[in-house]
Amino acid sequence: MHDRALRIGILGGGQLARMLALAAHNMGLEPWVYCSDKTDPAAQVTSHIHIGGLDDVTSLRRFLKETDVATFESEFLSPQILKKALEKSSSKILPTPTTMAILQDRLSQKNLLIKYKIPTSPFIAVKSINDVYKAHQLFAGKFVLKKRHGGYDGYGTYVITSREEIENFKPVLANETHGFIAEKYIRFKRELALSAVRNKGGQIVFLPTVETKQENSRCLWVKGPIHHAEIKRLQRRITNFLGNIGYVGVMAFEIFDSTSGLLINEVAPRVHNSAHYSLDALDFDQFSLHILALLNRKLIEPRALSAGFGMLNLLGRRKQPAHSPLTQVGARAHLHWYGKQQERPGRKMGHLNFLSPTPDKALQQILLELKKSR
Amino acid sequence: MHDRALRIGILGGGQLARMLALAAHNMGLEPWVYCSDKTDPAAQVTSHIHIGGLDDVTSLRRFLKETDVATFESEFLSPQILKKALEKSSSKILPTPTTMAILQDRLSQKNLLIKYKIPTSPFIAVKSINDVYKAHQLFAGKFVLKKRHGGYDGYGTYVITSREEIENFKPVLANETHGFIAEKYIRFKRELALSAVRNKGGQIVFLPTVETKQENSRCLWVKGPIHHAEIKRLQRRITNFLGNIGYVGVMAFEIFDSTSGLLINEVAPRVHNSAHYSLDALDFDQFSLHILALLNRKLIEPRALSAGFGMLNLLGRRKQPAHSPLTQVGARAHLHWYGKQQERPGRKMGHLNFLSPTPDKALQQILLELKKSR
Repeated sequence: MHDRALRIGILGGGQLARMLALAAHNMGLEPWVYCSDKTDPAAQVTSHIHIGGLDDVTSLRRFLKETDVATFESEFLSPQILKKALEKSSSKILPTPTTMAILQDRLSQKNLLIKYKIPTSPFIAVKSINDVYKAHQLFAGKFVLKKRHGGYDGYGTYVITSREEIENFKPVLANETHGFIAEKYIRFKRELALSAVRNKGGQIVFLPTVETKQENSRCLWVKGPIHHAEIKRLQRRITNFLGNIGYVGVMAFEIFDSTSGLLINEVAPRVHNSAHYSLDALDFDQFSLHILALLNRKLIEPRALSAGFGMLNLLGRRKQPAHSPLTQVGARAHLHWYGKQQERPGRKMGHLNFLSPTPDKALQQILLELKKSR
Repeated sequence: MHDRALRIGILGGGQLARMLALAAHNMGLEPWVYCSDKTDPAAQVTSHIHIGGLDDVTSLRRFLKETDVATFESEFLSPQILKKALEKSSSKILPTPTTMAILQDRLSQKNLLIKYKIPTSPFIAVKSINDVYKAHQLFAGKFVLKKRHGGYDGYGTYVITSREEIENFKPVLANETHGFIAEKYIRFKRELALSAVRNKGGQIVFLPTVETKQENSRCLWVKGPIHHAEIKRLQRRITNFLGNIGYVGVMAFEIFDSTSGLLINEVAPRVHNSAHYSLDALDFDQFSLHILALLNRKLIEPRALSAGFGMLNLLGRRKQPAHSPLTQVGARAHLHWYGKQQERPGRKMGHLNFLSPTPDKALQQILLELKKSR
C-alpha cells in the first residue's frame, strides 16, 4: 500500500488521454497528464498536468518518476526516447516501448502476426523498385503500398493497379528512408474491429466484435455486436499471441471481413476509436479495462448493456472555434465531447454512443444524427 | 451560440461536485468548481477552479460572472449571500436560492409539501416547550423533534417518548434560535427514495424508485428498482408540485414506506446519494440529467440497464490517509472513489455500484462487499 493515491501517467493530451484520465478519476487513481498545452483535452480534466515535449528525455524522465505506471495514447512515440527516459529508474510504461517498436514498423508487425498464426493479408517487404514489380506480379496487378513507419489514417498508403502508378511511385519510394511493405489488395465485405485486454497475470478478456465504417480513411461509425463464425478461433490465436509477447493493456485489431475470411489489417497497442462505444454500451469500458490491466487487477469479460449499440464520430467540418453540440444531438445520444479548442475539417471532435434493440437500429440512429450534422 | 465552451459553475468541492464535474466534461461543458482547497474531490477533476469561501459575496460574485449557469452540492448555503452575489448580474444559480431557502427550513418545507398534497408525516411547529407538550399529546407519546435549520444525517434530531425526555430537551430548545418541528414518529417497513428532474420548459422525468438502508442516520446501501402501488400517484403530485414552484434540476425525495402508505420524510433540491446507482445502472445518470435540466435541454426518462441494481457507500473507518480500494473490491463492482485526502469514521469516501438480475441479488453483492470491508 502506498502512502498516497496511485498515479497513472498518461503520455499525450488528446481525447484518448482524456477518456483514460476520466476513467482513472472514477477509480480513485490520480491521472497525471503529460502534454504540450494546458488547454489540451486531457489537461482540462485533471489538476495534475506536466507540460513537456514527447521527445524530451529529461522532462519525460522527471514525469515518469512521479507516476506508478504510465501509458500512452499514440503508438507513434519514439521507443528509443521512452527507453532512455526509463533508464535506471523503477518507472514503467505499459504497453512496453519494445512492443511499441515492433508494432510501429508495419513489416515487423506483419511478421509478428505471421509468427503467431494471426491471419493477415499476403505481403512482401519493399526496399527497392524491383520489390514493387515483384508485388505487381505476385498480387495479380492490384496491391497496396504502405509506409513501414509513421503512416496513419490513409496517409502513407498507395493503391497500385498499373505499371504507370508504379512509375509515379518511384520518387515516393526514393524519399522514404524506412521503406514500404506491399500488401495484396483485399476486397472486403466490411471492416470489423476487436479489442482484447490482457493483464500481466495473463488474464485476457475480449470486447464484443464490431463493424466499423471508414470514410476518407477515418472511422465514421461503429455498430455491434457482430457475430462471425471465425471470431472464436481468432480470439484463441490472439490469446496465444498476447500471452507469448507478455502484452499488458488493450490491443485493438482492425479486421477485413473478406472472401478469404477474417484478415487482420492493423494492430494498435492502445485504447482505440473502434471501442469508444464501450463507454455506454458495456458495463466496463475500454479505458477502465486498460487501467485495470496496467495495475494487474483482475479482469472480467465486459457485458453488453443492450442487444445493439453504435458509435458515431463527430468530425470537424471547418476551421473555427469548437463548441459542444449538446443541444443539437438527439436526447437518447450519449455525447462524449473532447473539449478541443479548434474545429478543423475531419478532426475528431467527439463521439456519440447509442444503445438500441439491434445493431441495425443503432445504425439507423447513427445515420439520422449524421444527416442532421451534414 | 457562445464564442467559448458553456461553463457550469459548481459551488462546493465535495463528491457531488466532483461527479457533476465529470458529467459536464463528457458533455463538452467546462465545469468551474468553487471550493475551499485545490485538493478537494471536485478540484482534482478540472483545470478550472476558484478557491473561495461560500460566505464570501465578492468572491462568489466574481465566480458566478464567469459561469453561464451555476448549481450547488449542498442545500445549506446561505440563500441571502447567494442572492447578494447574483445582484445586478445576469448570472444564475439553479435550483434558485429562493427554493433553497424554503426547503432549508423544515417548517416551510413541510408546509410546501402540504400545500401540494405531497403526503408527509403529521407535524406541528415548535416554538416553546408548550408546543412540545402539545406534540406529546397529539402524537400519542412518541414523536421526533427536528431542528428547523441546519440538521443533517441525524444531527439535530431528537426522538421523544417520555415526559423526562421533554424535560431534558428544554435547554436544547432554549439554545436553538430557529426552533424545531415536532413530527409524529413513523413506524416504517422500509425507506425509499425517488428523484425527479425538471427542466425550465416543464419536462419532468423520474428515476426508478429505490429502497435505501440507513445506519447511524447515514445511507449505507440502496437497491432497486422498487415497485409500489402508490408511486404513480406520488409522481403525479410531485409533477404538479415542481411545476408550480418552477423548479429546475434534480430533486430527491426520501420516503417512509409505512402502514399509512408512502410519506415523504425529507426533500433535497440537488443530486442525491440515493441516486448514485444511476452512474452505472441507468442509461442516463442523475448528474448528467441535472446538468441537462440546468441548460433547459430536452429530458428523456432514463432506463435501467439491468433488472436489478444496488449501491454501497464506502464509509471511512478510522482517521488515516485515504486510499482507493480498487484492488480490494469485487471485479464486477463499479467503483466511484472521491479522492478525499483523509479517511474519517463514517465519512463518505466513495461508493460501489452493482448490476444484477434482481434487486435482491444486487443486495447479496452489497452484503458480500460489506462483509469484506468490516
